[in-house]
Amino acid sequence: MKQFTSVHDVADIQALIQSSLAIKKDPFANNNLGKNKTLGLVFFNPSLRTRMSTQKAAYNLGMHVMMLNIDKDSWALETRDGVVMDGDKVEHAREAIPVMGQYCDIIGVRSFAGLQNRQSDYTEEVLNQFIALSGKPIVSLESATRHPLQSLADLATIEEYKQTSKPKIVMTWAPHIKALPQAVPNSFAEWVLATGYDLSIAQPHGFELAEEFTQGATVEYDQTKALENADFIYVKNWSSYKDYGQTASHLRSWTVDQSKLVHAPQAKVMHCLPVRRNLVIADDVLDSPASIVIQQAANREFAAQAVLLKMLGGIQKA
Amino acid sequence: MKQFTSVHDVADIQALIQSSLAIKKDPFANNNLGKNKTLGLVFFNPSLRTRMSTQKAAYNLGMHVMMLNIDKDSWALETRDGVVMDGDKVEHAREAIPVMGQYCDIIGVRSFAGLQNRQSDYTEEVLNQFIALSGKPIVSLESATRHPLQSLADLATIEEYKQTSKPKIVMTWAPHIKALPQAVPNSFAEWVLATGYDLSIAQPHGFELAEEFTQGATVEYDQTKALENADFIYVKNWSSYKDYGQTASHLRSWTVDQSKLVHAPQAKVMHCLPVRRNLVIADDVLDSPASIVIQQAANREFAAQAVLLKMLGGIQKA
Amino acid sequence: MKQFTSVHDVADIQALIQSSLAIKKDPFANNNLGKNKTLGLVFFNPSLRTRMSTQKAAYNLGMHVMMLNIDKDSWALETRDGVVMDGDKVEHAREAIPVMGQYCDIIGVRSFAGLQNRQSDYTEEVLNQFIALSGKPIVSLESATRHPLQSLADLATIEEYKQTSKPKIVMTWAPHIKALPQAVPNSFAEWVLATGYDLSIAQPHGFELAEEFTQGATVEYDQTKALENADFIYVKNWSSYKDYGQTASHLRSWTVDQSKLVHAPQAKVMHCLPVRRNLVIADDVLDSPASIVIQQAANREFAAQAVLLKMLGGIQKA
Repeated sequence: MKQFTSVHDVADIQALIQSSLAIKKDPFANNNLGKNKTLGLVFFNPSLRTRMSTQKAAYNLGMHVMMLNIDKDSWALETRDGVVMDGDKVEHAREAIPVMGQYCDIIGVRSFAGLQNRQSDYTEEVLNQFIALSGKPIVSLESATRHPLQSLADLATIEEYKQTSKPKIVMTWAPHIKALPQAVPNSFAEWVLATGYDLSIAQPHGFELAEEFTQGATVEYDQTKALENADFIYVKNWSSYKDYGQTASHLRSWTVDQSKLVHAPQAKVMHCLPVRRNLVIADDVLDSPASIVIQQAANREFAAQAVLLKMLGGIQKA
Repeated sequence: MKQFTSVHDVADIQALIQSSLAIKKDPFANNNLGKNKTLGLVFFNPSLRTRMSTQKAAYNLGMHVMMLNIDKDSWALETRDGVVMDGDKVEHAREAIPVMGQYCDIIGVRSFAGLQNRQSDYTEEVLNQFIALSGKPIVSLESATRHPLQSLADLATIEEYKQTSKPKIVMTWAPHIKALPQAVPNSFAEWVLATGYDLSIAQPHGFELAEEFTQGATVEYDQTKALENADFIYVKNWSSYKDYGQTASHLRSWTVDQSKLVHAPQAKVMHCLPVRRNLVIADDVLDSPASIVIQQAANREFAAQAVLLKMLGGIQKA
Repeated sequence: MKQFTSVHDVADIQALIQSSLAIKKDPFANNNLGKNKTLGLVFFNPSLRTRMSTQKAAYNLGMHVMMLNIDKDSWALETRDGVVMDGDKVEHAREAIPVMGQYCDIIGVRSFAGLQNRQSDYTEEVLNQFIALSGKPIVSLESATRHPLQSLADLATIEEYKQTSKPKIVMTWAPHIKALPQAVPNSFAEWVLATGYDLSIAQPHGFELAEEFTQGATVEYDQTKALENADFIYVKNWSSYKDYGQTASHLRSWTVDQSKLVHAPQAKVMHCLPVRRNLVIADDVLDSPASIVIQQAANREFAAQAVLLKMLGGIQKA
């Protein structure tokens, strides 16, 4: 695997899910494979789960890890070509990225959408510069439009908890006070659909995701109806793709609380975290057995490890 | 040992002190014990000694270490229950802490007193949430009311330098320009007393510590008298417990300089560091042979290692 | 090697260059030498290459690494003697540095010139306090007046690319909008001259470097003439030493673009990075085969490793 930036980089999704779950049973089976290999983790944005789970995954494989918080440890980067750099940016990506590539065997990079310019975000400028310029395999730690390590962990979690071969999976929008990227819902949708599951997506009018990610999904505008008989309810806020970056924080009726689960008594509730309690999901759901958000986060470690393992050329025996 | 948050978590204080000193003689004796184990170090506040000494201790045991500066690397955490999270806090401790617990085998956490609300500080909200929610052994890296790794290092240092079995130990308040927590003096008092030593505490009126920590100590208001014939002088500023968080930065006569040591010629002077020179302790003391503050800081590594060793189930042969 | 702060600490420059290049061919030859040894990296200023390359070098030798960003992870340090510390500085270097020395086997420290006070900068206060107080070998990660790890990597790069035994090496000033230290050009000059090469330095009037670093170099004020037939063109901005800290950001004719290379068709262009494109060096140079800035940065890892290897007492077989 030369890069892991979307489901399209994965030749066999089921095999990668199964690898993640096999690693969970025996995380240290390959703990010499990464000897003398170094993973660089480059953060343009804050991180808790991604930072810790990916670092842990690398340690499980015996790799070294180097962390870099751009702008805190280092310098602000210029990414535009051709500019005279007499402003506040100290270094250009054209130098910084190949230099990082010299010191690392694999590079993970996190760079969120700016939500100011849809075209700029959806062309994945930063991620693509790392791919083009680093000379090393790149793992997305969440890019402007996708969060594939999250999605792989999500699919592994569904694999663990599903009671039927074709569970009913519903992703629902929920309110938030800030404009959030579409990366997580885009990515979840394309992974679920690529895995061969059916997917319903419930959101208010105007919050439809880009079609390239959701083709084949059922789009709903009535949350109550969408959630009926769901086996998995994937809750997430996102800002508008159409009216790019706009929010609807007043739509508090979309908050997922126990009343929403009445017609889906068997439903497991998922969220990528961080989640704002009682705004996105209510306490009565998060503190109930319906919630599997912690188990889902735990699987981040094994999903990351499955990807790193594959990049290192190893195989996990189940 | 399931947790290390105060002297009350320690079954045999003398054994732990002796383990620290045995580790000092042979720090790498157990350097495979921590293989495939990961220590998470979570900082809500800055740190130099605690950060480096605990990290080093973990490396000495062959553990991996993951550092997280909350609010810099990650997100601001909400700790109150039941709130609608539509403010500036991005994640709730109820998610963040169990997630960290998934990736770590032991978690160290540093969270200082806010000094605004005594009841809130003295109920140790953050520390107790880590204990309740992480599912993993917790090591306090200084909490609102205690600093047990410091105290264990302090007792190991006294063990090394004492000339008699029952040295005279005096803790004295000293001036400072900022309101500081009572954690270090609380903790030192309860460790010294639990170890079976006598303790005198000298402070201005109004700066008495909470009785739960100092029961059995002799309270003095005359610093000169208190320091007479002291073998160990433990200098520290703290803000008022009674008039919670109030300071007395004008009481410069409490600064410990050589004139204070005239009637305690054999005294060793200790401080947990960082120390503000010529405000808390004068140059003429810190730069004299009476000061053992660097040796005391050096013992932080071995104290932390003794605690981690015990949590990992190992034993250091003396 | 007890310290590595300038070329004067190096007994045999050629041997250290050759060691760097031998390490490049087999970076893991000594990967058990650093077992149970810890490198502390202390940053008073931001860093990308130095941070990552030195960390990687230590990992290649099997060392542990502890990073400390002063003022972010830790506390602001006081370095002046005798002051009453009732301002914003929380800890004195006289405590902080020896404490770090307790936890580390080797310490790297980065501390830039303040450019306010020439005498203070050129007496290397911070670096010298680490040497005096830490009790451990000190590696400069760039100090106020020198950047020896950079210079060693520069010399190793010249060794790799030179076509003749005595290449023509020209260092040229280039414009910048901010006042930058003289550390890199000072250091490059003294290493090049100490290695036995000829060096020309081109700069505008008023930007002459201190003579202690440049004695033996040819000083030029006509950039075009200086660059004629150059084999290596080392581009760098620096602020004035004479009129201390003054800049000349308007002198854009000194920007190095392809027109400057017309009479030096074989020249390799070097820069320590970060470089501001189209201000210091133009895209048409940086994106051409003349530029070896990435290769130069790659050698930072092996230069750092050669220094750490020597400090650990090891030898790299070529």
